[in-house]
Amino acid sequence: MRKVYNYAAGPSMLPEEVLLEVQRDLLDYKGSGMFVGEMSHRGKWYEEIHNEALSLFRELMGVSDDYYVLFVQGGGSTQFEAVPLNLLSEENGKKADYIVTGNFANKAYKEAVKYGDIACVATSKDDNFSYIPDVDSVEYRKGTDYVHITYNNTIYGTRYTKLPPVNNLVADMSSMILSEPVDVSKFKVIYAGAQKNLAPAGLTIVVVRKDIVDNGTPLPFCPTMLKYKTQADANSLYNTPTSFSTYVAMLNLRWLKKFGGVKEIEKQNIYKAGLLYDILDESKFYKGASRKECRSMMNVAFTTPSPELDAKFVKEATENGMVSLKGHRAVGGIRASIYNAMPVEGVKKLAEFMKKFETENK
Amino acid sequence: MRKVYNYAAGPSMLPEEVLLEVQRDLLDYKGSGMFVGEMSHRGKWYEEIHNEALSLFRELMGVSDDYYVLFVQGGGSTQFEAVPLNLLSEENGKKADYIVTGNFANKAYKEAVKYGDIACVATSKDDNFSYIPDVDSVEYRKGTDYVHITYNNTIYGTRYTKLPPVNNLVADMSSMILSEPVDVSKFKVIYAGAQKNLAPAGLTIVVVRKDIVDNGTPLPFCPTMLKYKTQADANSLYNTPTSFSTYVAMLNLRWLKKFGGVKEIEKQNIYKAGLLYDILDESKFYKGASRKECRSMMNVAFTTPSPELDAKFVKEATENGMVSLKGHRAVGGIRASIYNAMPVEGVKKLAEFMKKFETENK
Repeated sequence: MRKVYNYAAGPSMLPEEVLLEVQRDLLDYKGSGMFVGEMSHRGKWYEEIHNEALSLFRELMGVSDDYYVLFVQGGGSTQFEAVPLNLLSEENGKKADYIVTGNFANKAYKEAVKYGDIACVATSKDDNFSYIPDVDSVEYRKGTDYVHITYNNTIYGTRYTKLPPVNNLVADMSSMILSEPVDVSKFKVIYAGAQKNLAPAGLTIVVVRKDIVDNGTPLPFCPTMLKYKTQADANSLYNTPTSFSTYVAMLNLRWLKKFGGVKEIEKQNIYKAGLLYDILDESKFYKGASRKECRSMMNVAFTTPSPELDAKFVKEATENGMVSLKGHRAVGGIRASIYNAMPVEGVKKLAEFMKKFETENK
Repeated sequence: MRKVYNYAAGPSMLPEEVLLEVQRDLLDYKGSGMFVGEMSHRGKWYEEIHNEALSLFRELMGVSDDYYVLFVQGGGSTQFEAVPLNLLSEENGKKADYIVTGNFANKAYKEAVKYGDIACVATSKDDNFSYIPDVDSVEYRKGTDYVHITYNNTIYGTRYTKLPPVNNLVADMSSMILSEPVDVSKFKVIYAGAQKNLAPAGLTIVVVRKDIVDNGTPLPFCPTMLKYKTQADANSLYNTPTSFSTYVAMLNLRWLKKFGGVKEIEKQNIYKAGLLYDILDESKFYKGASRKECRSMMNVAFTTPSPELDAKFVKEATENGMVSLKGHRAVGGIRASIYNAMPVEGVKKLAEFMKKFETENK
């Protein structure tokens, strides 16, 4: 059992058995005599890791042959620009719709505005992003190249429970990738920084429909390194990859497969989130930051009756081995990020602490 | 002593004591109860690592306050575009000169051509990049925004021993950073992927003169994530950094400081390279790939009398615990990359093997 539970929004916890394997093999991966991070990315040792990570991701995420899976660098922030640069089409007037449900959704929107005719067709800004707009009543424009959503919003603890009824979706799935089943066929592009649910920061995953890469034309000034075709043509080895992150991703994907895959981990995620939301629902002391119908399973944000008690909560939790619980400044209060790798025991410990804290401070 | 010596061109060897420390602290960094790759990049644990790595790099590289040191993602390949996007000035006609001394120098040149009035003012392509052109006889154009060089060329084993006599240099130092003293004040920008001399792949270091960032205007379509100002304004924490690579870089920089710094490691690098070049000079069996006056201290490339013997050399070396010695396809033969972290013992072992192989096969 870990001596500390880490509720950080990302980077965040990795499964203990994954870390133990990394530690065991650190100076000698499978008899190679090398640390994975020292290996040539053109050699057989790394190529096996690279290809297993790609193929396990494809299997667990349910990605069909109609899509490329790319391992790139630069984080979600780089994809905020890569998406419009690759998808906006001069012929169609470079049109895309965005639904703005938080800080990162807004960043994605603002970056895209530079490149074309971009509209924010819905937002929940009016209530500090505490909800997801009703996707069925949004007026999507005709002839757009894509509609962009941020599937899970870490800061506010919200998530889409229903997808916009369009056939050209793009989604930032950084904070929920592989935590619940997703019908990939509904998306043109899915992207995710790996540092929340998969691996140490550095690795970014892009799932992109093959026809977009093979037949599309990126905007003329799109940098080579941001073009999806660059890595699609090179099996994500155009340049030196973030090999250590890919290695940990591979171990993590093996762990997830052994766990039973995404459907099984979703059950555990529902259970884990429920342990905390039940307390919020029963309590008059705590107040959840997001509306019930769109609660995130990955990030549970809430407040106590006062900022002083919020700070006391975070301080005492830290003293009890529960760290990084401070809420984002946009919401304040407390945020518990409970990604796939957060053990049930870690959520139970927090739940018990919440009850005890309420009793002592109400 | 490592059971395998790894002569890969990058990623490449890391100091054993660095890896042992990573292994020891893997699940519990300094009592935090966390792996460094799990920590919030906004928390105190990681911030200390981040700032120590930045400040040790500055100290060991001798970077004055006139420069920003940036930790970014995307590798040297991304800098091939970031450099022209940040430095080319519309007012000056977007002019830059490139000296093309190999594969990566050529890639940098080709990416830049897309963005402005770019000239290849010198190249050693006529003799398969086996030398560095005489920098004093090059006709640099007037009014350029910069002159770009690739300081060390891994594939061919060449390096600049004299700098072009201009005051607006930009250098790719990926394969020699911190291996010998460099007068930073002669450069507008220095960039380097970390995976050869510093850390696992993912981290890229940019040293850029402050006036360029503070007063310059990137080309209008430069992506936010490629603008130097984005990370300069955020102490390289605009988005989630490659925290594990930064951590290993910090440990490696501590190791280099303890070693005595760059001047001391240069002495060892001269000695190590000399052990191999002496054999090439005394032998009629081996032939060096680069001319004597511009030999790399990091990459020693050579051939035996035939491709068959080259292959036999690589095979037998591998069987003897010396791996990744196969030369790049552009040169063929054998390449031994002996970066800072390659122990003297590793070079001696290779030198002895070379002598034995010559005796047995000539």
